[in-house]
Amino acid sequence: MKMVSIISRISSTLFPRVSMPAFTMASRSKATSVKPKTAIVMLNMGGPQTTDQVGGYLLRIMTDRDMIQLPVQSKLGPWIATRRTEEVKKKYNEIGGGSPILKWTNTQGRMLTEALDQMLPESAPHKHYVAFRYVPPFTEDAFQEIERDGVERAVIFSQYPQYSCATTGSSLNAIADFYRNREVPSSIKFSLIERWATHPLLAKVFAERIREKLEAFDSRVRNDVVILFTAHSLPLKAVSRGDTYPHEVAATVAATMSTLQVPNPHRLVWQSKVGPLPWLQPYTDDAIKAYVKQGRKHLILVPIAFVNEHIETLHELDIEYCDELAKEINKPGPKSVPWRTTNTASQISRLGTQTPIQHFQHYRQQSIQTH
Amino acid sequence: MKMVSIISRISSTLFPRVSMPAFTMASRSKATSVKPKTAIVMLNMGGPQTTDQVGGYLLRIMTDRDMIQLPVQSKLGPWIATRRTEEVKKKYNEIGGGSPILKWTNTQGRMLTEALDQMLPESAPHKHYVAFRYVPPFTEDAFQEIERDGVERAVIFSQYPQYSCATTGSSLNAIADFYRNREVPSSIKFSLIERWATHPLLAKVFAERIREKLEAFDSRVRNDVVILFTAHSLPLKAVSRGDTYPHEVAATVAATMSTLQVPNPHRLVWQSKVGPLPWLQPYTDDAIKAYVKQGRKHLILVPIAFVNEHIETLHELDIEYCDELAKEINKPGPKSVPWRTTNTASQISRLGTQTPIQHFQHYRQQSIQTH
Repeated sequence: MKMVSIISRISSTLFPRVSMPAFTMASRSKATSVKPKTAIVMLNMGGPQTTDQVGGYLLRIMTDRDMIQLPVQSKLGPWIATRRTEEVKKKYNEIGGGSPILKWTNTQGRMLTEALDQMLPESAPHKHYVAFRYVPPFTEDAFQEIERDGVERAVIFSQYPQYSCATTGSSLNAIADFYRNREVPSSIKFSLIERWATHPLLAKVFAERIREKLEAFDSRVRNDVVILFTAHSLPLKAVSRGDTYPHEVAATVAATMSTLQVPNPHRLVWQSKVGPLPWLQPYTDDAIKAYVKQGRKHLILVPIAFVNEHIETLHELDIEYCDELAKEINKPGPKSVPWRTTNTASQISRLGTQTPIQHFQHYRQQSIQTH
Repeated sequence: MKMVSIISRISSTLFPRVSMPAFTMASRSKATSVKPKTAIVMLNMGGPQTTDQVGGYLLRIMTDRDMIQLPVQSKLGPWIATRRTEEVKKKYNEIGGGSPILKWTNTQGRMLTEALDQMLPESAPHKHYVAFRYVPPFTEDAFQEIERDGVERAVIFSQYPQYSCATTGSSLNAIADFYRNREVPSSIKFSLIERWATHPLLAKVFAERIREKLEAFDSRVRNDVVILFTAHSLPLKAVSRGDTYPHEVAATVAATMSTLQVPNPHRLVWQSKVGPLPWLQPYTDDAIKAYVKQGRKHLILVPIAFVNEHIETLHELDIEYCDELAKEINKPGPKSVPWRTTNTASQISRLGTQTPIQHFQHYRQQSIQTH
């Protein structure tokens, strides 16, 4: 992929973007010695650090047409954002007053750049930049900082393993918007890691977390535990437009099960639907209820589309499904419910280190081959 | 999986069947010397060999609640079948008067059993049995023949790589129905290959066929050719019930692209929708039109959910999409349309040989380990 296609806006209206290989390369950078030399730009949606940020966060989501498409969006979007603010604030209060996503992204960024400095001295020093879509530090702030720092290379690294127009696509459009009336600096060589759904190390980390959880079950029931892979759902309208997200999530599930090599049954289900329109199903809570009704009470929930904790794992999975829903459907059943979320961020953050290393290694091989 | 779960009916109403590993094993068979020793039962839907069979074929489909769920099905099903018979007859006439599926299944079965006889003398002689769901030879005929032949083992081998309640599930229920008022013969050891969506050889065969097609393009456009993977769509109601088919198809696509290692864009789309209700999208014809509108005229269509030619490849892809639709959207464009279907049955049939061999090899290893 040429940089021009990163900087150009991407239409999400119909078959917006054909799938690209996971590792696409920029041309080789010139050797000048400015510090930091290489930027790792970590794209993500972000989450409110404090409940004061909830209003602005929801407003930006509800007016982002890549994320959600509403009739009369400029009016209806802000109205919905205002209407939902208190309810969402309450949820953030229940998980400690804010999202941990900035903390974990910074942790992962530090681990990542330290490892890169050791492994790839020719592109060191590396510095990570957090580029969030809906809360500070915003995407445009990150790119301003990158320009001020005078880096030679910038690897734009989507923190969503699976590409969706609503997530990675929206962040790429935020970059394009930033450069709409501004010259793209010719001194920086940009490259992009836009999808890594079938990266073997991603499958390996998920498989390790799942194995740990399975081993916590009594050996007599261990092989019967249903592994429920759960990902944020998508409106069916987006699926119909050709968003590759559902297929890429399914590919991660297949790669994980193939790495895991256990006889357990598994299923891919979809969480976090909002609004009245149909979204990609089956829904996670319906699936849990259906399995419990069938007498299958040993389930683990595996969030498969994120690489750190956030409101959908900490509140929706841990509180609403593992706690509240379990009580609702199990009464007067056992109190200790053997459902667990596998995504402990401190463990999974190791993964973040590996993908850019492979990107650089691939880049280095390409450079050797083509120069 | 125990045989009892093959013989039991499978509910397709909600989360009907949890995913199983691709290769599930029966216990080791006793050594008696009857011929044939081992049955390979090839499950598939089948297609009318002559246009005389079209009416009965449609009637059986339209009254199979695993395949399709209609209100007042016992009345509406036959009515729709009658109403569509002439139109479907016309399509079969356009591809030569009948479906080639029996011919190719027998070819694959012969190649398969010959290879097995050579590679696995201890379970030889092997004999293949065609068990179709909607036309002769019916599933019940195949099982009667297996019992008459007095085999020691029967490997029930679904010819659908990806499991769906509507396809493999329906065939397994046909077996359960056959044994509903009949004793399951204790002298036969049954085992089941019910899904093989991520089998490396399946991905390899698809990748080889795609590479051949790509090489037919001019080298200047070769890397821009869009690879459109196309599979039979499913009603959204079935997706919502938890049918694993969409995810397993996506897993085959990911495995194929991973094997293929080309920079071409690819997309998974869905064909053959019938009726007024919403089905899994994006639809293949809409996708072709959208890409052509975007100026992308180099496309190949890859049927990814079947292992031999049938009405959906020979008529829908080759005639309706590659020929009629191309003319419609390209006029007054070039006459030679660079779209191809990759699924040439004679080439892909080799694949059929490999899966049961691995099944047996796995079985043999298991036997060595456990005996």
